[in-house]
Amino acid sequence: MEVYFDNSATTKPYDEVVNEVATAMTEFYANPSSLHKLGMNCEKKLSEAREILASTINCSKDEIFFTSGGSESNNLFLKGLAKEGNHIIVSRFEHPSILRTVEFMEKNGVEVTYLDIDENGQVSVEQIKEQIKKNTVLVSVMFVNNEIGSIQDLALIGKTIKECSNRAKFHVDAVQGYGKIEIDVKSQNIDLLSISAHKIHGPKGVGFCYIRKGINPNPLIHGGGQEKGVRSGTSNLPLVLGMVKATEITIDNMKDSYKKVTELKEYFIQRLEDIENIRINSPIRDNMSPYILNVSFRGLRSEVLLHMLEEMDIYVSTGSACSSKSGKGSHVLLALGLELKDVDSAIRFSFSPFNSKEEVDYVIDSLKKSLTFLRRVKK
Amino acid sequence: MEVYFDNSATTKPYDEVVNEVATAMTEFYANPSSLHKLGMNCEKKLSEAREILASTINCSKDEIFFTSGGSESNNLFLKGLAKEGNHIIVSRFEHPSILRTVEFMEKNGVEVTYLDIDENGQVSVEQIKEQIKKNTVLVSVMFVNNEIGSIQDLALIGKTIKECSNRAKFHVDAVQGYGKIEIDVKSQNIDLLSISAHKIHGPKGVGFCYIRKGINPNPLIHGGGQEKGVRSGTSNLPLVLGMVKATEITIDNMKDSYKKVTELKEYFIQRLEDIENIRINSPIRDNMSPYILNVSFRGLRSEVLLHMLEEMDIYVSTGSACSSKSGKGSHVLLALGLELKDVDSAIRFSFSPFNSKEEVDYVIDSLKKSLTFLRRVKK
Repeated sequence: MEVYFDNSATTKPYDEVVNEVATAMTEFYANPSSLHKLGMNCEKKLSEAREILASTINCSKDEIFFTSGGSESNNLFLKGLAKEGNHIIVSRFEHPSILRTVEFMEKNGVEVTYLDIDENGQVSVEQIKEQIKKNTVLVSVMFVNNEIGSIQDLALIGKTIKECSNRAKFHVDAVQGYGKIEIDVKSQNIDLLSISAHKIHGPKGVGFCYIRKGINPNPLIHGGGQEKGVRSGTSNLPLVLGMVKATEITIDNMKDSYKKVTELKEYFIQRLEDIENIRINSPIRDNMSPYILNVSFRGLRSEVLLHMLEEMDIYVSTGSACSSKSGKGSHVLLALGLELKDVDSAIRFSFSPFNSKEEVDYVIDSLKKSLTFLRRVKK
Repeated sequence: MEVYFDNSATTKPYDEVVNEVATAMTEFYANPSSLHKLGMNCEKKLSEAREILASTINCSKDEIFFTSGGSESNNLFLKGLAKEGNHIIVSRFEHPSILRTVEFMEKNGVEVTYLDIDENGQVSVEQIKEQIKKNTVLVSVMFVNNEIGSIQDLALIGKTIKECSNRAKFHVDAVQGYGKIEIDVKSQNIDLLSISAHKIHGPKGVGFCYIRKGINPNPLIHGGGQEKGVRSGTSNLPLVLGMVKATEITIDNMKDSYKKVTELKEYFIQRLEDIENIRINSPIRDNMSPYILNVSFRGLRSEVLLHMLEEMDIYVSTGSACSSKSGKGSHVLLALGLELKDVDSAIRFSFSPFNSKEEVDYVIDSLKKSLTFLRRVKK
C-alpha cells in the first residue's frame, strides 16, 4: 500500500486537470495579448476564468489577478504596498514567503510587528488592536496554518482591523484553506488574498489573488502590463484553465470532502491512542482544519521516523516542505511554545479526500512497528 | 489555409512537450522540497534538468535557476542587483520587462542610461565605453530584438564591458534568440541571461536564467528558499520537464530550422517585391534573425491590416504582443528613427520551422488583395 499523507506540501492533480492543461496547451496556445482572434479567444477564456474564480470568494472578476502562485502573491502584497517608514503586522507563524519577505523589508526601513500565537495556534485580536498604528499599512494573517492546521477567525480579525484603521489593509494567505473552508472576502473584510492551485489538485506554477478594488500595489514584475499592470509576463492560459478545473471540482465537493476528511482525522486521532509517548500539536476540536494533523513522537528525531515510514511507502512531512531542508526547528511549533524535544520529533500528516481509513490503519500499524524498533535501538 | 506568423509572441508547444507535461503532472507530482523519496525523486529530476539546460549555453548546472519566465528573470536581475545610487545601462529598444522596470527604478534613485540604436538596429559599443562609470552595476542588452530581429554582437559587447569595468555585469535578454542562434556565456562574457520556454515551443509560465557563479541578486520572491534562495515558490517540475523537452528538440534541430527559416524569410522578401509602397524595417542581410520580418505597409494603419488578414486566417502582429494593446507607437521602431507613418503601418511576421513557402504565397496573395481593397477605400 502506498499512502500519501503530504497533501499540504502539494497534491496530486485531478485527471481532469491534467487533461485540461494538455488540451489547452494545444488548443489555446496563442498569446492572450495578441490582437488577432486567436489571441482574443484566449483573452476571453482568461476573462471567463476570472469570473468563475471570483464567484468562489464573493468578489468581482475585476478583482482577480493571476500569478505564479502563493509565494509570488504574498511577496507582491508586502513589497508592493509597504514603503520605508510604513508598518506591517504579521503573525509569528506565517509561511516563509511572508516571514522571509518582511525580514528583508525590515532591513530596508519597514517596521514589522510579530503577533504572538497562543497554545491553540490562535492570534490575539486584542494584540492586533494594540499594535495598529497610524503608519500601519498591512496586517497579514494566514487562514489555515500550514503546519498545524489552526484556523483564524477571519471575520473577527477583519472587523477589528477596520474598526482600528481606515488605512491598514487586511491580507490573508489562504493557500491552505481555500477549497476546504468557505471564504467570503466581503463579509470577512478581506482586502487581499493569496491562493495557490497546486494545493487543491491543480497545476503547480499558477495561483490567483484577490485585490480589492481601489488598492494598487506596485508590481513585483514590471513589463508588458498584463493583469492590468499588476503582474507582467505572458498570460499562462493553459495553467489558469487547469486551476479553474481544479477549483470547480474542489468547490463542488467541498462539503463532502470536509466531512470525509474530518472522519479520517478523528479516526486517526482515535487510533493514535494505541501509541505511547506522543503529543498532538494540532488543535483537535475548535478552530482547526481537518486536513492537517501534527504529532510529536517523543524521543525520536522526526527525520528518522519520516525515512522509516517512507520505506513502507508512507509519505509524510516534518514541518512544511518549504522549510524542511533548513535544518532548523519548525518556527510554527516554536511559536506555539512547544519544548524543543517536541519540536524535533514532530510529524505532519496532511490529508486529501482521496485518503481512506484503511490507509490510516496501515500508517498506525507502521508507526507502531517503527516506534518499537527505533525506541528499542535508542535504549 | 491557416497561417500562424506570430511565433515571436508565442509558439505552439510541440506534441512531445504536451505529453511530457501531462505525464509529469501525474508521475512527478510531489514537492521537490519534501524530504521523502517521492520528493527526492523530483529533486533529482530538477537537477538533471539543470544539467541539460546548462550544456546548451556552456555554463555549469549550479548556474541555472528556474523562474516563471523572461519577464520575471529580467525583473529579478534589475531589481535584485541595482540599489539607489547605482547606475544601469540599457538599450532603448529592450523588452518592456526591462524598460518599465528601469523606469520604476529611476523613480527610486537608480540612474539609467539608454543606449541609442542605429538604423540597422545596432547598439554602439563606443557608446557603452563612454557611458560605463564607477557606479555602473549592470549593462542589459537584448540578443535578438523582438520586433525587428536585429542581433547584437554579444561577444564584442561582453568584451567591451569587461575591459571598461570589473564591477558592471553583462545581462542578456535572450528570449528571442535562444534555441535559434548559438549562445556561449563563457566566450561571450555574459554574466546573466534570461530565457523563456514558450518562445521555443515549450510551456508558458516557465523559464530559466543563468547567473554566473559569485553573483547574488536579491530575490524578487522571498520564501521557502527554493533555487538556492534566489527564487522561492514550490518548484514546478512538470513545466521544467516540458521546457527541457522543448529545448532538446529545438537545439537538436537548431541548424536545420535556421536554414529553413532563412529560406522562408528570403522567399518572403523576394515575394514582397510584388507589393508597392512598403518599407522593410528588419535588417535583411547582416546581424539579423531570420525568424522576424517587420514591414510597413504605407498609408494603412497596421491594426486594420492585421484584422483584415485574420479574416483570412492569417495571424500576425503589430509590434510585440506585450505592447500591442498600449495604443502607442512601437518604441522599437521609434528608436530606429522611423517616421511615424512607417511606425503606424508596421506588421511583424514571425516564423517557426513549421511554416512553409506555400504559407508565404498565401500571405502575399492575401496582402495584395487586402492592400488593393484598403488603399482603394482610402482614396
